[in-house]
Amino acid sequence: MSLTAEIVAIGDELIAGATVDTNSGWIARALEKLAIRNVRTQVVGDDEDETARAIVEAAERADVVLVIGGLGPTEDDRARHAVARAVGAELVHSDEAFDQVRAWYARAGREMPDTNRRQALLPQGAAILRNARGTAPGFALEFPTARGGRLIASLPGPPGEMSAMFESEVLPRLAERARRAGGGTAMHRFQLLGLSESVFAERVGDWMARDANPLIGSTVSQGVLTATLRARGADEAEARAALDARVAEFRPRFAEWTFREMERDESPRIEDALGPLLIERGLAFTAAESCTAGLIAARLARVPGISAVLGASFVTYSDDAKRRLVGVRPETLAAHGAVSAETAAEMAAGAAAAADARVSVAVSGIAGPGGGTAEKPVGTVAFATSVDGAVEAEVRRFPPTARDAIRDASANVALVLLWRRLTS
Amino acid sequence: MSLTAEIVAIGDELIAGATVDTNSGWIARALEKLAIRNVRTQVVGDDEDETARAIVEAAERADVVLVIGGLGPTEDDRARHAVARAVGAELVHSDEAFDQVRAWYARAGREMPDTNRRQALLPQGAAILRNARGTAPGFALEFPTARGGRLIASLPGPPGEMSAMFESEVLPRLAERARRAGGGTAMHRFQLLGLSESVFAERVGDWMARDANPLIGSTVSQGVLTATLRARGADEAEARAALDARVAEFRPRFAEWTFREMERDESPRIEDALGPLLIERGLAFTAAESCTAGLIAARLARVPGISAVLGASFVTYSDDAKRRLVGVRPETLAAHGAVSAETAAEMAAGAAAAADARVSVAVSGIAGPGGGTAEKPVGTVAFATSVDGAVEAEVRRFPPTARDAIRDASANVALVLLWRRLTS
Repeated sequence: MSLTAEIVAIGDELIAGATVDTNSGWIARALEKLAIRNVRTQVVGDDEDETARAIVEAAERADVVLVIGGLGPTEDDRARHAVARAVGAELVHSDEAFDQVRAWYARAGREMPDTNRRQALLPQGAAILRNARGTAPGFALEFPTARGGRLIASLPGPPGEMSAMFESEVLPRLAERARRAGGGTAMHRFQLLGLSESVFAERVGDWMARDANPLIGSTVSQGVLTATLRARGADEAEARAALDARVAEFRPRFAEWTFREMERDESPRIEDALGPLLIERGLAFTAAESCTAGLIAARLARVPGISAVLGASFVTYSDDAKRRLVGVRPETLAAHGAVSAETAAEMAAGAAAAADARVSVAVSGIAGPGGGTAEKPVGTVAFATSVDGAVEAEVRRFPPTARDAIRDASANVALVLLWRRLTS
Repeated sequence: MSLTAEIVAIGDELIAGATVDTNSGWIARALEKLAIRNVRTQVVGDDEDETARAIVEAAERADVVLVIGGLGPTEDDRARHAVARAVGAELVHSDEAFDQVRAWYARAGREMPDTNRRQALLPQGAAILRNARGTAPGFALEFPTARGGRLIASLPGPPGEMSAMFESEVLPRLAERARRAGGGTAMHRFQLLGLSESVFAERVGDWMARDANPLIGSTVSQGVLTATLRARGADEAEARAALDARVAEFRPRFAEWTFREMERDESPRIEDALGPLLIERGLAFTAAESCTAGLIAARLARVPGISAVLGASFVTYSDDAKRRLVGVRPETLAAHGAVSAETAAEMAAGAAAAADARVSVAVSGIAGPGGGTAEKPVGTVAFATSVDGAVEAEVRRFPPTARDAIRDASANVALVLLWRRLTS
């Protein structure tokens, strides 16, 4: 049977909505690679009682409990206290942990404030988890419950510190546990463009039943439908066999819309596939962005080493910028408007010429809340892609939701359209 | 006594980390305005049992339970079933809800797939919450528990649909409840640049004690420290008095680093303050971005109406782009390198000239993972701002965390530096 995990994320800033919790998702994806399934994430404030209760509840249900945040040096950082209370252990000063905190300050060439002494407190019996990127050591301990032994790991909240510590210090411990637990899962993901969730559900039919194996889940995000097939089995081979059979049926039924298939450990973000592809083929890239205003270039620049193919890119928000920076002709703007396939096509071609790039994308749309008309309502977005001088352009209509949602979807779809041209 | 709330967010894509849950934070911020405190957020998969249990547990603790997601048309959307089970009600077809689903399709000019009939199912006795932006109606119902009457509201997962429904359909119900419950809170927020969380904690001392009133929480995100002061009282006036006294002490102690103060209902994002300021003063804006590669322009373009001040902006990733697009001199690059105050200053000045803008920002940095040197390690970022031709530049060093984190912090700090120049 495969292991289950729960996540307890701590922070007044999370619970109050001042900061978005990205750690939990990152951890869930990392756990998936070990066939450990995250079954619940709880977010609580910087409150020792609440946190301790959440940990106890999580440990009643799941084999592994990951506690994130609350390890800072300030009075309101209560993870150490909460875990100690949840497992009934005393909180003690650890010289080894204290040495690590001091060593971090020494490396950073700063003086250690006295408050950081607090970061050397650990529940009795806990193993220290080394923090390569910050001051706070984490810790892990075994917690016996009526339903079996649980592993509790407490990690710092800053994403960079958390992920580095998870990979080097927690993953090896979990891999060993997962190996002993046995049971297998397998996953395959399809990404589709141009299909609504309702129509998808109709076509997929009873493959989507809650007790089907593999289970199919679908979600629409940023203009793209992602369908995830997850199979279970007594071991990984059995799960893989069930999965492969369904994938073989799924593929032809949705070939018309599918632009990408993914195995378990790939990022679902299109730039994480497109960026390496551009680098591998040596295709210099640029963009001319109106409503997305930099989102496309910024997303592609998430990819390390992108400087090999990204030199210059253009935000051409105004008509004037479209003319001056990427050479859109005034008569095109006058005849078709800024949000048109014709203008987008000239933006893409002009950007490629101006940046001396072999591939380019262009986006011009109405993200709202104002600016919509009967003919071109909010959500109307023109796209163009250029590959070695061959330009393709089209106008799409997104649901008139929020400004941010339309802009994010537009950036994503632009990258998807280029990906599709380069891979089909 | 003020009301408490809990959020139950549903979705395999959330629990597996394929999608980030931004809804919970949005709702928490909206609740705060009514002095309703979110005490826990639970994220569960598309699983009826798990969801029903999470709802029951939440209703045992909190006065208001907001269930988000799982109202789509597909088989794996189980919110309706889970809420019905949690409250022990039957699930029934509602003609009124069905009419709303059909009306949405009619307005969108599309044919309604048969699967959407499922969206007309509601727990017996529930009131329909109208969805202005999508197909799925929400619903609200009263749920008696041993500890008092709870309000449960079930809302769709797409952020645009959720927020519109919350504001028009849920907020009025909650406001009435909050008024009856009494109790008051008041909040004030400071944002600081250039102060670490440890040094902040030392300077703030016992104001940060867990039982202090107001309570002070701090968080560091994107290079900025945010300190939130929250006071409680028998009513709002009492809370406000406690808050004002502490704010008056806090302000001079941290004046050196404070660049912004906020009342409860302001967005903590700097672009939401800077954008309207630029528009109000009619200050045309542009940017020259290297490692941020469009993030700065894209963030500012989140602000509706930004076209009044944003015409063109530049992604100058390569040295060649820095020279050609924004006129950085080859000798400056040769003498000081791309990541230097000198280069950033010429980028800001050159961008302003090229875009005919009165204000500009420029960023050039080493986001990693590669590219760092002993003299300029990963995390070294040069910033410049230009206001009516007067350029200021500086080099900052961020902790060498993740590439994305360094780029996000760089974009944020660039906007903060411009904000500080325009408001001090």
